Amino acid sequence: MGCLDSMRECCDRPKNTNIRISFPAVCFVWQTAMIILFGVFIRYDEESDTHWVEYKKEKNITSDAENDFYFRYPSFQDVHVMIFVGFGFLMTFLQRYSFSAVGFNFLIAAFGIQWALLMQGWFHSLDYTDGKIKIGVESLINADFCVAGCLIAYGAILGKVSPVQLMVLTLFGVTLFAIEEYIILNIIHAKDAGGSMVIHTFGGYYGLSISWVLYRPNLEQSKRLHGSVYHSDVFAMIGTLFLWMFWPSFNSAITDHGDGQHRAAINTYLSLASTVLTTFAISSLFQKTGKVDMVHIQNSTLAGGVAVGTAAEFMLMPYGSLIVGFCCGIISTLGYIFLTPFMERKLKIQDTCGIHNLHAMPGVIGGIVGAITAAAASKEVYGTEGLINTFDFEGHFERSPTVQGGYQAAGLCVAIVFAIGGGIFVGCILKLPIWGDVADEHCFDDEFYWEVPEEEESLHPVLEYNNHMMINKRTDMVESNFSEPQT
Amino acid sequence: MGCLDSMRECCDRPKNTNIRISFPAVCFVWQTAMIILFGVFIRYDEESDTHWVEYKKEKNITSDAENDFYFRYPSFQDVHVMIFVGFGFLMTFLQRYSFSAVGFNFLIAAFGIQWALLMQGWFHSLDYTDGKIKIGVESLINADFCVAGCLIAYGAILGKVSPVQLMVLTLFGVTLFAIEEYIILNIIHAKDAGGSMVIHTFGGYYGLSISWVLYRPNLEQSKRLHGSVYHSDVFAMIGTLFLWMFWPSFNSAITDHGDGQHRAAINTYLSLASTVLTTFAISSLFQKTGKVDMVHIQNSTLAGGVAVGTAAEFMLMPYGSLIVGFCCGIISTLGYIFLTPFMERKLKIQDTCGIHNLHAMPGVIGGIVGAITAAAASKEVYGTEGLINTFDFEGHFERSPTVQGGYQAAGLCVAIVFAIGGGIFVGCILKLPIWGDVADEHCFDDEFYWEVPEEEESLHPVLEYNNHMMINKRTDMVESNFSEPQT
Amino acid sequence: MGCLDSMRECCDRPKNTNIRISFPAVCFVWQTAMIILFGVFIRYDEESDTHWVEYKKEKNITSDAENDFYFRYPSFQDVHVMIFVGFGFLMTFLQRYSFSAVGFNFLIAAFGIQWALLMQGWFHSLDYTDGKIKIGVESLINADFCVAGCLIAYGAILGKVSPVQLMVLTLFGVTLFAIEEYIILNIIHAKDAGGSMVIHTFGGYYGLSISWVLYRPNLEQSKRLHGSVYHSDVFAMIGTLFLWMFWPSFNSAITDHGDGQHRAAINTYLSLASTVLTTFAISSLFQKTGKVDMVHIQNSTLAGGVAVGTAAEFMLMPYGSLIVGFCCGIISTLGYIFLTPFMERKLKIQDTCGIHNLHAMPGVIGGIVGAITAAAASKEVYGTEGLINTFDFEGHFERSPTVQGGYQAAGLCVAIVFAIGGGIFVGCILKLPIWGDVADEHCFDDEFYWEVPEEEESLHPVLEYNNHMMINKRTDMVESNFSEPQT
Repeated sequence: MGCLDSMRECCDRPKNTNIRISFPAVCFVWQTAMIILFGVFIRYDEESDTHWVEYKKEKNITSDAENDFYFRYPSFQDVHVMIFVGFGFLMTFLQRYSFSAVGFNFLIAAFGIQWALLMQGWFHSLDYTDGKIKIGVESLINADFCVAGCLIAYGAILGKVSPVQLMVLTLFGVTLFAIEEYIILNIIHAKDAGGSMVIHTFGGYYGLSISWVLYRPNLEQSKRLHGSVYHSDVFAMIGTLFLWMFWPSFNSAITDHGDGQHRAAINTYLSLASTVLTTFAISSLFQKTGKVDMVHIQNSTLAGGVAVGTAAEFMLMPYGSLIVGFCCGIISTLGYIFLTPFMERKLKIQDTCGIHNLHAMPGVIGGIVGAITAAAASKEVYGTEGLINTFDFEGHFERSPTVQGGYQAAGLCVAIVFAIGGGIFVGCILKLPIWGDVADEHCFDDEFYWEVPEEEESLHPVLEYNNHMMINKRTDMVESNFSEPQT
Repeated sequence: MGCLDSMRECCDRPKNTNIRISFPAVCFVWQTAMIILFGVFIRYDEESDTHWVEYKKEKNITSDAENDFYFRYPSFQDVHVMIFVGFGFLMTFLQRYSFSAVGFNFLIAAFGIQWALLMQGWFHSLDYTDGKIKIGVESLINADFCVAGCLIAYGAILGKVSPVQLMVLTLFGVTLFAIEEYIILNIIHAKDAGGSMVIHTFGGYYGLSISWVLYRPNLEQSKRLHGSVYHSDVFAMIGTLFLWMFWPSFNSAITDHGDGQHRAAINTYLSLASTVLTTFAISSLFQKTGKVDMVHIQNSTLAGGVAVGTAAEFMLMPYGSLIVGFCCGIISTLGYIFLTPFMERKLKIQDTCGIHNLHAMPGVIGGIVGAITAAAASKEVYGTEGLINTFDFEGHFERSPTVQGGYQAAGLCVAIVFAIGGGIFVGCILKLPIWGDVADEHCFDDEFYWEVPEEEESLHPVLEYNNHMMINKRTDMVESNFSEPQT
Repeated sequence: MGCLDSMRECCDRPKNTNIRISFPAVCFVWQTAMIILFGVFIRYDEESDTHWVEYKKEKNITSDAENDFYFRYPSFQDVHVMIFVGFGFLMTFLQRYSFSAVGFNFLIAAFGIQWALLMQGWFHSLDYTDGKIKIGVESLINADFCVAGCLIAYGAILGKVSPVQLMVLTLFGVTLFAIEEYIILNIIHAKDAGGSMVIHTFGGYYGLSISWVLYRPNLEQSKRLHGSVYHSDVFAMIGTLFLWMFWPSFNSAITDHGDGQHRAAINTYLSLASTVLTTFAISSLFQKTGKVDMVHIQNSTLAGGVAVGTAAEFMLMPYGSLIVGFCCGIISTLGYIFLTPFMERKLKIQDTCGIHNLHAMPGVIGGIVGAITAAAASKEVYGTEGLINTFDFEGHFERSPTVQGGYQAAGLCVAIVFAIGGGIFVGCILKLPIWGDVADEHCFDDEFYWEVPEEEESLHPVLEYNNHMMINKRTDMVESNFSEPQT
């Protein structure tokens, strides 16, 4: 810890944000590596290969409708929208960081999905007969899921890092994700359809740990830009709503065909609906004259989707989903009101988007709800076949529900350990003074990494003419050393 | 009526917009009630329950693709986008009411869908063997439809009510909707795939009746904010386009599998395309130098989707759809130009978003088109089986097309009666001086229910510095009692 | 050519932008024509007709899931979003042309799809037994595709034409498109799933040719509005992201059921991901201090989707897709940096949105990639049946892959010839001084065709009051003949 603190000190030298060499270099090298690795490892699976026509005959498949594409593609596209528009626009709320929010989100997601196809492929879908990874639409969804963890982490450090740092964060984040996911889903055999543990808990604590290592003591110097303006809040609502609407697709995208996908969608739909009401209620309750705070509406309304992730495919029951959403709206909003300021002041964790309230805490709740729901499963409720089917109690995973509950809890712990350990490790790497990040007083400003258009629009000719004159006058004023023109 | 007028007077006392107690209380109480009622009544249906695996065997279903989820889920997601992004952003056009437009739309939709699952469930899908409502993806779509009626009503009173009033409006709106829907669809056995009558006519007149009761004589005091700014109009176009694009899904979401959904989508696609051209034409024709008005483009282009709702699943024929769209674009745009001002001045109906032109009138047209198309149906066009199939002329609904046409018209009347009666009743309740609505001079302002960010962004350092100085100067000016600095 | 130049001169007379007669007239006449032609020619196909219930029995189809609606509708909706929101919002980047960008895009797309259904219907799906065109969901997708060519062309002349000109451009554009498409796909029998040649090459050069004919020598007088502001760039990102996300649906929408759609989606997904990284890299490399330029991110990130269009359904292999995307990101971004200014200065082609870099060049690359991939196809990779299946080597199109490669290249040439020839022809028509376009100094301004809201919002009471005072003062100043108030 002392080591970390001293490291924090030593890196506080004048900042150079010129990334003209490092940033293109990282992009080119990594993309080239992707091409080589894809060339060596990645091929189409039997449902996306031209041999499908023969495969169908072999397996006696009578209809193209049985191709997994038709079961998963609509959900895939919804998830895709969540990753790029949802996460991207959710972070546009800062008044002068919208380009970076939506642009760098775009960049790291586009890189991350490629690396995820490789990492997840090695762990999950390596075909041992020819040593190739076979990809199909489910791989694409999983890659999107994987990258979501890194985008969540971006939320904690939004405005404080350079794009090069984000690329590094994503490289390690995807790697760590693939390993913890393999341990949780394949070794521990926990179920986690919507990724409460695997995605949200991991992504949340990964980002918070990095933010803790990268603590900026003088961040209040950027206070001026650390807030929203009217229209940036409306932009952020685009992100919120697309996340909220498509969350049922997120939680059901890779569950079992048939009842699995159907039930996961219903549970998520209900949980999210419930969260909205309690978020509004708490937000209003803790403000003078009952005004609602946009920050809460943009974020906490989504907590129900996170928290129902693990249990969405179980028989959580409609009222169970409502209860989960009810609690999460309250906890998440209270988190924004009390916990985030506390964490910043006392724990030195600066969490720009409040991912602790939106992802980390609800993710943990989701893991716990999942464990309890699994432990409480019974043949009466699920049916004999349904129970086996839902939990994959087959082969050497022939467990009782109670035991499964324990393993679910174990999975949650693995996610937290990987997140915090990995986050501190990656944070230390990002602390190196070579990545071109901005100084504390220049945070939350697009100016340093983007060509920003210079003038606001002129509204009608008269105003425009005068604006022009005023700007000239102002410039004069500045040039005459801030003295007012004499009269 | 005199009673109403005197009621209007008596409620004009100083307004208190503090909803810190009432608003959270309503949210918590209603959400808690939902949890209890869901616990008692709502369960998964056989296609979303884990018993599906057994059910399939029983019914000899060979493929998971037969699960209703795959027939309806893509359409459901489109409808979901229309409800939350479409309706929400369509109403962001006001310069300072975007938070409330998109935020309160979010709130009441999230509440409404829960209450709708219960209300519609009791009427439509109560399983009498165990007294439970069984829900699946079609229930979710119907809940979204139900809440659309209330969101339409919100359009008439946008900017003039408190969130507590909106919650009350939604509670009653959903209840009334479920009853009129049951009467129209199940008792009268009218067909109404896209809800021209059930959703749009009802929602439109429900909102207009409420607005009539809540008439604000001094609304011109809020004139300053009763208009758009450049970017708020662009935001509204997001709403318009998502409504327009996904309307084919709206009208086809719950029609028959196969040709029913297919035909409804085609008809709606065509009708909407036609509406766009006539809307542009009329808008240009009635403005000096042929300029187009954004209000018309944002709203009237959608009228064709409303008006084709009932007949979308019938053999309306592609050219029939074009004709419907052609007429509605004209009527709706003329409505904005002539009818809305007339209604405000003469009938004392203040209709913020012009829902009379977008929903009420086209809805009535849609009902009439539906009745005519049904009455004109023949075995030659539909085929013997097709006719029975399309109109469900089975059991004790074995009717001739002409008779069906009559019943369709009856359905339209029911919708109007429920809407106006219910609207006046709910309006009277909302007139009570306990709901925290704003005074006439503070309408269309987010300030009273939202924490609004204080300053506009600064654009570049020089300007920023000077803006800062100017604001200071301005403040001085204000403080020095509006006297100009002496020279 | 000299003729064109003199034509350019002769039309430079004072401009009249009053389109109050011409614009409504065009809309009404053309929409009426559509209704009549649809009445004569267009009917539902067997999958959207009520006879489907009988058709199913006849063909022994056991499940409604076999209706083409379920294979194509989700992709159709994604394509629909690309056409209306994607293209529309991509063009909102100009500070004062967002209404026209999104509004006229809406108008011409809505007209174009109707005309496309007719034109493509006559060429592709005319039922010779009854002389009717039978439409289904695939027709709707094709109509959307067809109109995309015209929307691309709009990008080149954005800000410089009147809506009447756009309607004319669309009428001819759709006509030309349908003919070249018929030649390329049916006569030459080239494959072009995602339309690299048919849509993007054609649309790109069509627009550029028109822009060349309509060259405006004094366009720098509109320089003031020929740029973005902060929020307009964020709006444009909405367009970019929806295009980027849904491009896999675009390229897979009309490919073969099963593996064809599956593979096309995967290839596009990968190519686009790769493009993002190289776009960021090149953009950063060519700017001082490595800043990224929003114009490149908004546009060049999409080039990979264009360039993989033709080959998306082939066995391009995942790494092949990455390579295509890699190259296109570089080429397209370099195009924005070097080629666009060169074309404007030397070739007198003014390309507002840079469609040469986003559509024309990547389209040509896509055609070439398609030709090479087709020529390199082998039974080893595709399987015997797969090869026949993928390239439709049946009937009198029983070709070897090498020969097919040659035909693919021929298809590309046809697209270019039609685009340039058609573009010059249509450009000459649009050059006539009757269409109500604006003068050079009034380009890129919504003011001339739209009712634009007058004032920017006021942010809080003090500012508002003072703004009001300042506007008054300014107006005084203007009225007093721009003399500063005496002191």
